[in-house]
Amino acid sequence: MSPIRPDLPSSSTRDSFGPPSTEDEGLVVTYLLKGDPADCARRARLLSIEQTAEVSPGLCAGEFFEKHVLGRVESVVPAGPDRCEVVVRFPADVVGTEFAQLFSVVFGNVSLWEGVRVASVRPTAALAARIGGPRFGIAGVRTRLGVPERPLLMSAVKPLGRSPSELAAYAYDLARGGIDLVKDDHGITDQVFAPFEARVEAVSAAVARANRETGRRCLYCPTVTGPADVLVDRARFARDAGAGAVLLSPLVVGPDFLRVVAREADLPVVAHPALAGAFFAHDDHGIALPALLGTLMRLAGADLVVFPGWGGRFPFTREGCAAVDRALKDDLGGVRPAFPVPAGGLSLSHVPELLGVFGRDVVFLIGSALYERSPDLAANAAYFLSLVEARPD
Amino acid sequence: MSPIRPDLPSSSTRDSFGPPSTEDEGLVVTYLLKGDPADCARRARLLSIEQTAEVSPGLCAGEFFEKHVLGRVESVVPAGPDRCEVVVRFPADVVGTEFAQLFSVVFGNVSLWEGVRVASVRPTAALAARIGGPRFGIAGVRTRLGVPERPLLMSAVKPLGRSPSELAAYAYDLARGGIDLVKDDHGITDQVFAPFEARVEAVSAAVARANRETGRRCLYCPTVTGPADVLVDRARFARDAGAGAVLLSPLVVGPDFLRVVAREADLPVVAHPALAGAFFAHDDHGIALPALLGTLMRLAGADLVVFPGWGGRFPFTREGCAAVDRALKDDLGGVRPAFPVPAGGLSLSHVPELLGVFGRDVVFLIGSALYERSPDLAANAAYFLSLVEARPD
Repeated sequence: MSPIRPDLPSSSTRDSFGPPSTEDEGLVVTYLLKGDPADCARRARLLSIEQTAEVSPGLCAGEFFEKHVLGRVESVVPAGPDRCEVVVRFPADVVGTEFAQLFSVVFGNVSLWEGVRVASVRPTAALAARIGGPRFGIAGVRTRLGVPERPLLMSAVKPLGRSPSELAAYAYDLARGGIDLVKDDHGITDQVFAPFEARVEAVSAAVARANRETGRRCLYCPTVTGPADVLVDRARFARDAGAGAVLLSPLVVGPDFLRVVAREADLPVVAHPALAGAFFAHDDHGIALPALLGTLMRLAGADLVVFPGWGGRFPFTREGCAAVDRALKDDLGGVRPAFPVPAGGLSLSHVPELLGVFGRDVVFLIGSALYERSPDLAANAAYFLSLVEARPD
Repeated sequence: MSPIRPDLPSSSTRDSFGPPSTEDEGLVVTYLLKGDPADCARRARLLSIEQTAEVSPGLCAGEFFEKHVLGRVESVVPAGPDRCEVVVRFPADVVGTEFAQLFSVVFGNVSLWEGVRVASVRPTAALAARIGGPRFGIAGVRTRLGVPERPLLMSAVKPLGRSPSELAAYAYDLARGGIDLVKDDHGITDQVFAPFEARVEAVSAAVARANRETGRRCLYCPTVTGPADVLVDRARFARDAGAGAVLLSPLVVGPDFLRVVAREADLPVVAHPALAGAFFAHDDHGIALPALLGTLMRLAGADLVVFPGWGGRFPFTREGCAAVDRALKDDLGGVRPAFPVPAGGLSLSHVPELLGVFGRDVVFLIGSALYERSPDLAANAAYFLSLVEARPD
């Protein structure tokens, strides 16, 4: 018969793997739970089990589980009608060293509950160091570009349907006009219109030609979103072809590919927010915008994070965007800050207002509006550049 | 100057990559959009651009885009107050051959809109064949187990915090009692309590010993959720150690790992629903439960899909579970059917009712309740087995 009694003194039957010796306090997650304080306190306790031991409370009783396995409910504070803010501290050894498990601990099973909202995620410095964060970050991207101070400009070669030579022609004009980062649209992957290798070679060459002419160092960021067994090879191919960064959709392919691609290709990675809206569409469930596209994507290794700016075609607010900005740049246990990349139908006239929120460490991503300003795409890009170069401070 | 005029006759400037020649009609997605019919028709048109060309309408005008790139809005039908059912057909060449891009086309950017719900996803047979689906499916899993007809039983070694030898002891008892599939908890990954390799070797050996004694073929399914550059190696290690399947969380690590792991380890894959609740928590946005955990996980390659049954600790309904069951088994262009694995705090007394919904092709996953029935875990497992073996038909 197996030792399934909950009161089993685990230490006496443990092998050499435990109990863990670390004093690391782990991961602090702030949740907003639906319910009155008594109900929230009860649910918080169940959440702290659901995200760790994942058994009936009777099967994880005792000091060992309380100390080393279960989340610890640190506070339950009313936060509006029928809602409480709940702080849970998860042991570092439950999170381990891998982003996937961290993501699961934060929201894996309780995503299937009702009324659970992740408001913020704070690892200790030791845990953050194990998870990693951006390989390049704001400073590393600026070094590659040779642009130490001003806001950066990003645009996209698009739309899907164009051929490699058409996309390359756009890229050439964008780079020639002064765009710092020219990315593929996230939906331009490896379709028949512009297959991955042909496209990456053509666009890389076009950007290199523009760079030779301008003396700038525009970085081409091809989309490497693709099969799990091919994605890293695409990033390496892109590097060898001359790409200066890569773009992928972490929630489509798995966020840990940010880290792996940055390391294997030695290139900065741009995170695209595809699917992200599923997490923050409602105030009472999911993961808040700054926690998901700020803290979590940064911990996972994004050097630049694309998200919908306000005033474009997505329903986002100035306050939400400012919160993402803070989450990408604030003190996070030594993890490098990452660039916010507000996007999503922004117009050129919007740039001054955006500067007021994000300051200099921002990448403005403008696509369609740049193509539409005039038929001269290089001139449009140069105008875009003038908007940030002209800034007096 | 680049050819950025929307009325550009693309064919004259295209290189050898297009236009595509396939007659495949592609991917049909049914959305529920918020709004009155006129508003929904307008939003459906914008959605069909957002998910494909992703530019201002003026930049993707013309026959080429209409025919080959943009989604085609097939119908807009009122579906309740302030809501319409909208059917959009996406060209097969936009989806391509990769699951990641299919997932992006279905919900990538429009996840960032308000009031967009994916109700169903239907690929043509040709597209479904390119994406793949389960490598083993229901029939393949039954063959490996040598159990041709009756419902299957799954349980878990748990909780997190136990050592490899403790988990192995549970697995031995579960297998000896007649459990068909013994999985790790999804949160038992590679922590200090039971590191991956030591655990997988210990538990595999314990299950093998039980199998030698019983003559059965219980399959151990270790959790391989982990780093993107290590996950496939873990699955191969598991196979070499004697594991009979693997478990992973597709929405945590990327759904395409289902396909890659099944192929590289030649093992059936069990999909865990961690994070899935973010997608179907609200009726007016996201991806419906059967579309996500049924059709999409099946297309991605899951042989078995864990999801919360009704009557457990998650707020799910009998109707929702029946819809997942249908989505995993219905005609999907030749894609193999996959096993539904209702779970999440189910009790043994719940089994007869579950049988009424899922029929014989189901895997019942019961964890805590099996450990709690009596201190004799093997006897508890044997009792669980008697509940499905005793079934008269």
